[in-house]
Amino acid sequence: MLQNRFRGGGRGLVKGIGDDCAVTRIPSGMELLVTTDSLMEEIHFRQKDFTPNEVGQKAVAISVSDIASMGGKPLYLFVSAFIPDRFGKVQVNSLFTGIHKMARAVNVTVAGGNLSSSEKLLVIDMTVLGTVRKGQAVYRSGAKPGDGIYVTGTIGDSTLGLSILNSKNPGWKKKYGSLVKRHKLPTPRLKEGAALSKMNLVSSMIDISDGLVLDLSRLMEASKTGAKVHLEQIPFSEKAGAFVSENRKASMEQLITGGEDYELLFAVPTKNERKLEKLGRTLKTSFHRIGEVTNQKGKIKVFRKGKLLHFKKQGWVHLAR
Amino acid sequence: MLQNRFRGGGRGLVKGIGDDCAVTRIPSGMELLVTTDSLMEEIHFRQKDFTPNEVGQKAVAISVSDIASMGGKPLYLFVSAFIPDRFGKVQVNSLFTGIHKMARAVNVTVAGGNLSSSEKLLVIDMTVLGTVRKGQAVYRSGAKPGDGIYVTGTIGDSTLGLSILNSKNPGWKKKYGSLVKRHKLPTPRLKEGAALSKMNLVSSMIDISDGLVLDLSRLMEASKTGAKVHLEQIPFSEKAGAFVSENRKASMEQLITGGEDYELLFAVPTKNERKLEKLGRTLKTSFHRIGEVTNQKGKIKVFRKGKLLHFKKQGWVHLAR
Repeated sequence: MLQNRFRGGGRGLVKGIGDDCAVTRIPSGMELLVTTDSLMEEIHFRQKDFTPNEVGQKAVAISVSDIASMGGKPLYLFVSAFIPDRFGKVQVNSLFTGIHKMARAVNVTVAGGNLSSSEKLLVIDMTVLGTVRKGQAVYRSGAKPGDGIYVTGTIGDSTLGLSILNSKNPGWKKKYGSLVKRHKLPTPRLKEGAALSKMNLVSSMIDISDGLVLDLSRLMEASKTGAKVHLEQIPFSEKAGAFVSENRKASMEQLITGGEDYELLFAVPTKNERKLEKLGRTLKTSFHRIGEVTNQKGKIKVFRKGKLLHFKKQGWVHLAR
Repeated sequence: MLQNRFRGGGRGLVKGIGDDCAVTRIPSGMELLVTTDSLMEEIHFRQKDFTPNEVGQKAVAISVSDIASMGGKPLYLFVSAFIPDRFGKVQVNSLFTGIHKMARAVNVTVAGGNLSSSEKLLVIDMTVLGTVRKGQAVYRSGAKPGDGIYVTGTIGDSTLGLSILNSKNPGWKKKYGSLVKRHKLPTPRLKEGAALSKMNLVSSMIDISDGLVLDLSRLMEASKTGAKVHLEQIPFSEKAGAFVSENRKASMEQLITGGEDYELLFAVPTKNERKLEKLGRTLKTSFHRIGEVTNQKGKIKVFRKGKLLHFKKQGWVHLAR
């Protein structure tokens, strides 16, 4: 029973788990944000790579990341889980311990959901409700030619982490443990997203779930603009650089087309760029400027030492049907 | 792309499909209701029994039924669908046509969601947001000894419909088509739920998803009361009666322990029972009184011609782990 797995409430919850619906009040002056995300075994993760606890943590992290990218604050989490027959009590507990752990870390309340049996595969579907002050939600649309393009954190660690999990080199998992960790446990940039929205610094924003290039193209498409990006300016971690040097199959291209960074990607009007720098110092976060918005609608150009790169694929596309 | 499958918006939606979150405003004076429901192939339905269109319709219907049981009005629907590899465009379109059809019928706006690939099984997870006037939500708790116990519609048609789908008698599907239809396409009692809440007639309410007896025990447990029910007073459809007479394996017990009626089950203080009758006439709905609330906490007693019945199982219990 979900009821026994999560006790809680508060935070405006009139009714939490244990009735047909959760009931809550949204303060006037606030807009409601709603996002859903799913993880399915064998499609989004492999059983051998993730403990149930890790799946639980990751599912919460990637769900609240969408709230971060709107500049909002996550409040409530609704969990639908399909539990495979092979799971005993220990695995179910592990899953919910992971969900609970990350929920606490990002300050969301598990307010409802349902558990079903599944024959073979673990499936988790999460809905997160959050709030943002009226008119303060940051959309994908809104970027203007001349705006600077920025990212939080470092790019490509997660896709390399996945390659390492898939590789047959047992030494890599240890040597490049930090990359694997970034794949298993992304950091939703809630603090940064909320501050950027509150200070009105950004014209458009998205979180990078399917690769920098693809999500940049989504951001520019929604804004009816294009983008020019310089590979040298994209922040890569030291470990990512080392891995690409050591492993012939890895490439810089992979770093910016691989998915699951869950960093924020956003456009900043020139007049705000100094305030952004200052905000970065206050938050002890680095915002990296990687290029500019152009008026070439729909065109994403990535330059390496001034030379235009061509991509085989832009990123992860789910289900083109 | 979900965006192409549903265009719409309005109804307080600041932003619908096409950004990282849906954004909406909840009028002050209203409480927000949230519910999630899932359907997984082979667990909740079999591929051979349901077209994708029927699955889509049913998923929406059972999701909004939870809003009905709180006395609310459904507004927004968020759809997460895992599409199996065997599905081509035709099947995907059929699924979304079904979702759209029922969404229109119950007046909800599809405001977001996501599509993923699944290897074998179709999985649908729905989150519905609705509203109810502040303080008007009807909970499971609140029934008092002496209250009358009522249901909408007829009980047990759905479980017989499922038996007929599972049976090897090809004639039954035709002869008892109305029972099969009630299993495939339950009617969420939105009009009734909203009116009961608005007129303050009921002390507690639930929708019957896992069988009358089991859901009655949930209602009574939440209210810290018991119940006495008379089999003769429970409304069964003519077809259900005929099927039970014809088929030795079917029983009256099955009717009140089988799941998926999606009728409302509620308690009514004696002083309101006349008003309820009147409301039934106004809505052209029959509310059937099936018994009374007792002070025997947790005890559900079902009588047949004055004799206490004993049950092997109360209803469908999902996942006891």
